[in-house]
Amino acid sequence: MARDRGRRRSRRTTEGGPTLGQLAWRQVENPYPPFEILNAEQIDAICDTAYRILEEVGMDFLHPEALEILGRAGAKVEPGSERVRFDRGLIEEALSHAPASFTLHARNPGHSLTMGGSQINFASVASAPNASDLHGGRRPGCQMDYQNFLRLGQSLNIIHLFGGYPVEPVDLHPATRHLDCIRDFLVLTDKAFHAYSLGRERILDALELVKIGYGLTETELRQRTCIFSIINTSSPLRLDGPMIEGMIELARHNQAVVITPFTLSGAMSPATLAGALAQQHAEAIASMALAQLINPGTPVVYGGFTSNVDMKSGAPAFGTPEYTRAAMVGGQLARRVGVPYRSSNANASNLADAQAAYESEMSIWGAVMGHANLVMHGAGWLEGGLTASFEKMVLDAEILQMMSETLRPIEVNEETLGLDAVRDVGPGGHFFGTAHTLARYETAFYSPIVSDWRNFESWEEAGSESATQRAHRLYKGILDAYEEPSLDPAIREALDDFVARRTREGGVVAA
Amino acid sequence: MARDRGRRRSRRTTEGGPTLGQLAWRQVENPYPPFEILNAEQIDAICDTAYRILEEVGMDFLHPEALEILGRAGAKVEPGSERVRFDRGLIEEALSHAPASFTLHARNPGHSLTMGGSQINFASVASAPNASDLHGGRRPGCQMDYQNFLRLGQSLNIIHLFGGYPVEPVDLHPATRHLDCIRDFLVLTDKAFHAYSLGRERILDALELVKIGYGLTETELRQRTCIFSIINTSSPLRLDGPMIEGMIELARHNQAVVITPFTLSGAMSPATLAGALAQQHAEAIASMALAQLINPGTPVVYGGFTSNVDMKSGAPAFGTPEYTRAAMVGGQLARRVGVPYRSSNANASNLADAQAAYESEMSIWGAVMGHANLVMHGAGWLEGGLTASFEKMVLDAEILQMMSETLRPIEVNEETLGLDAVRDVGPGGHFFGTAHTLARYETAFYSPIVSDWRNFESWEEAGSESATQRAHRLYKGILDAYEEPSLDPAIREALDDFVARRTREGGVVAA
Repeated sequence: MARDRGRRRSRRTTEGGPTLGQLAWRQVENPYPPFEILNAEQIDAICDTAYRILEEVGMDFLHPEALEILGRAGAKVEPGSERVRFDRGLIEEALSHAPASFTLHARNPGHSLTMGGSQINFASVASAPNASDLHGGRRPGCQMDYQNFLRLGQSLNIIHLFGGYPVEPVDLHPATRHLDCIRDFLVLTDKAFHAYSLGRERILDALELVKIGYGLTETELRQRTCIFSIINTSSPLRLDGPMIEGMIELARHNQAVVITPFTLSGAMSPATLAGALAQQHAEAIASMALAQLINPGTPVVYGGFTSNVDMKSGAPAFGTPEYTRAAMVGGQLARRVGVPYRSSNANASNLADAQAAYESEMSIWGAVMGHANLVMHGAGWLEGGLTASFEKMVLDAEILQMMSETLRPIEVNEETLGLDAVRDVGPGGHFFGTAHTLARYETAFYSPIVSDWRNFESWEEAGSESATQRAHRLYKGILDAYEEPSLDPAIREALDDFVARRTREGGVVAA
Repeated sequence: MARDRGRRRSRRTTEGGPTLGQLAWRQVENPYPPFEILNAEQIDAICDTAYRILEEVGMDFLHPEALEILGRAGAKVEPGSERVRFDRGLIEEALSHAPASFTLHARNPGHSLTMGGSQINFASVASAPNASDLHGGRRPGCQMDYQNFLRLGQSLNIIHLFGGYPVEPVDLHPATRHLDCIRDFLVLTDKAFHAYSLGRERILDALELVKIGYGLTETELRQRTCIFSIINTSSPLRLDGPMIEGMIELARHNQAVVITPFTLSGAMSPATLAGALAQQHAEAIASMALAQLINPGTPVVYGGFTSNVDMKSGAPAFGTPEYTRAAMVGGQLARRVGVPYRSSNANASNLADAQAAYESEMSIWGAVMGHANLVMHGAGWLEGGLTASFEKMVLDAEILQMMSETLRPIEVNEETLGLDAVRDVGPGGHFFGTAHTLARYETAFYSPIVSDWRNFESWEEAGSESATQRAHRLYKGILDAYEEPSLDPAIREALDDFVARRTREGGVVAA
């Protein structure tokens, strides 16, 4: 069967190195109906409980501006506290302004993304304090690893965007880290990316850099959504000040906020899936309502991150049966609100091994079946987010490519039904050399990047590498072949100037 | 959180060793609707093409008795050949006698299985020529490994039945191997099992052993289905003589036949999914029709095994995007016929590593979403079936347990919605010590057997084991703790006597 190998890549591209043979960039569409494991009455019950939580218990918003906005809109702010109670009518009215779908613009317009509908976008790992690879082991994140993850994420076509710093570069000073990191996003990649909501100033710096990098005026920026930020509630039922500050600036600039309650069942939410999901829903809708009250029409995404703790140790677990079902129901709840849905590729493994793979698969199937539009930590996450692994990023790229091909509709027509081919071959023959096969030779099936399908003897002779060892070799090769995406030198200079000026000014001094 | 560990196992049992903490035996039900990725018209087109294949091309049945039965029923047997063409009316009429569901009786009635409806049964790995584990490496199958796989399969509650010899014990003489192996099934396990259709005599021996082991008369055996056999077509469009012989005896005895075309797309079937599925359907319905013509009402199962070859090498691939979609569509086709559906947990990895895990997950999700009733090779398969791995069996047990818990419906009621718990805890608190959590402490969440959720430091201090290394340790522990299921000593003696007599007679001399 070994014919002209150079020709068999028509669905492929050589981006990322000539040896990778990955799928071409495309936005992935999920053509199947959402998989709904709860019925309408059960979803009603969860939504009603969420409303009752907001009406009767309330939620704390740890920022005076948020309290003022909410109070003005008619929410009941408990005097002398940060506790806010909401009528459901107020929430419903506010959420009626949230768009069902929006475009997230990338510096390269070819990498802009639709967030909503049946689109599914895979983001890189984000926010890990440690990096790891097979040779260097596990170490605190640094700029070099940060930049290499960006290069890898830029090179892997199945990674649609960056969900945050893949690894936290702790060798960069916290006051100016955001400047260096966002400049790197704009220089080393041309895909869409995330800015952290750690107070107002960092978001304003990010917006300035985006204007320079994308070549936009302030007015143009406000007309197009170019960055997004994950707004995590501090479950149960609390939204912290720095998150609120970032959210306010983002909403005012028409940039996207992804509200993600961290409702770990048994720790930060009830030890029942229904209860954890009701609390997730309460936190999500109240926070999304705040975004709409700041600026009606702000693009928001409903984030589901409900998982459970290990009841033995209190350790968080991911990719569990509870997690997977919660991911599916999260999609039902987001659709009830009518906004895009965010889920994750999560696992709790300490190694990029079989556990990492099966927990990730459970998470991704939950996300895909639940019709997530944004899959955070799509590639590279380990240890419940404490480590970004270079090998795991490549393994996940394989898994995500496989999922994206699984989502390709099967073509059923006279040609593909192949009656003539069956007639040609007949009982007892084989299809290797038939015209029907030869015509499809190059593109018939998914061709993997990590998986090794050779027989045992050939595989053993070639060195008996595990999938993780192959992923190591592949990631090194991708980095070797990496080329910076094109960028106008004047823009590059302006970015450097801005970073230099803000660094001279001391960056953001207060946390 | 570390409380009384001995008490937190109410969904659990100590079978399989006190340290395993696995889920209790139960038949798994899939409460979700089947996931249908083709619409009714597309399924019609595949079914119509299958009929046209049988009408226009025909299928070879390499046994005179089959030709006689088919000819008598009105099929067109080409004179002087084994080629048979079928009118669709004949197939439809024959298949109308196939039961939608049946009970597969185990020696232990508590392990009997419903095959059909929304039940999903996981079978052990079957028919691998090699065995492997981390310490002993890969070696040709032998009786000791065979027996250890039986002990493991008996001990793991999530393995519902044996789909064949987990590994082929090549140290046993082929003439008498079936006698020793079936005796072992009946002695070392009390779960349902498979008998190979390698000619008439082996099946008759198997039925005799079952009668002794289950304590049944011939009449009683004919009233209950106790064994099943995988009937593989030799795709394209051929059914071999020994398979037909076994099938005839099984059908006459009202035992189950699982018809599984091996339609590897691009090799034994067209290089298009629609074409491969049309051919799969043709082979499946013609063979199931033969079973009904032998004995109307014979329990049959529609087997889907369509995968693709690697176009580079011709090597078979499993758990691919093509495989997963074919597994889902296979369920639609089986439901169209109205019979139970068989799929598999397949992968092509040479190691029990991340590739093995992600390919297996793709296969299992295809099977579960496609509503398979029988998942062959559920635990232990590697290398496209060339190796049965002890570690993979334990890893798969974890994966299958996770899947079975994912299929547990979420309870939504006032208790589980937990409004009172949220009220008790309020914003900013935690749920570790609340009454709502404590009441659910022992059974709230799935507790894994292989997965390690400890933080990196604790895991490292404990030896940095990979999931595969932990699986090794676990399988050894399960074997150490194994106890034979109870069996009347008189039955045991009768089984031994039968095997001794048939061995003295030389077993089955002709293949």
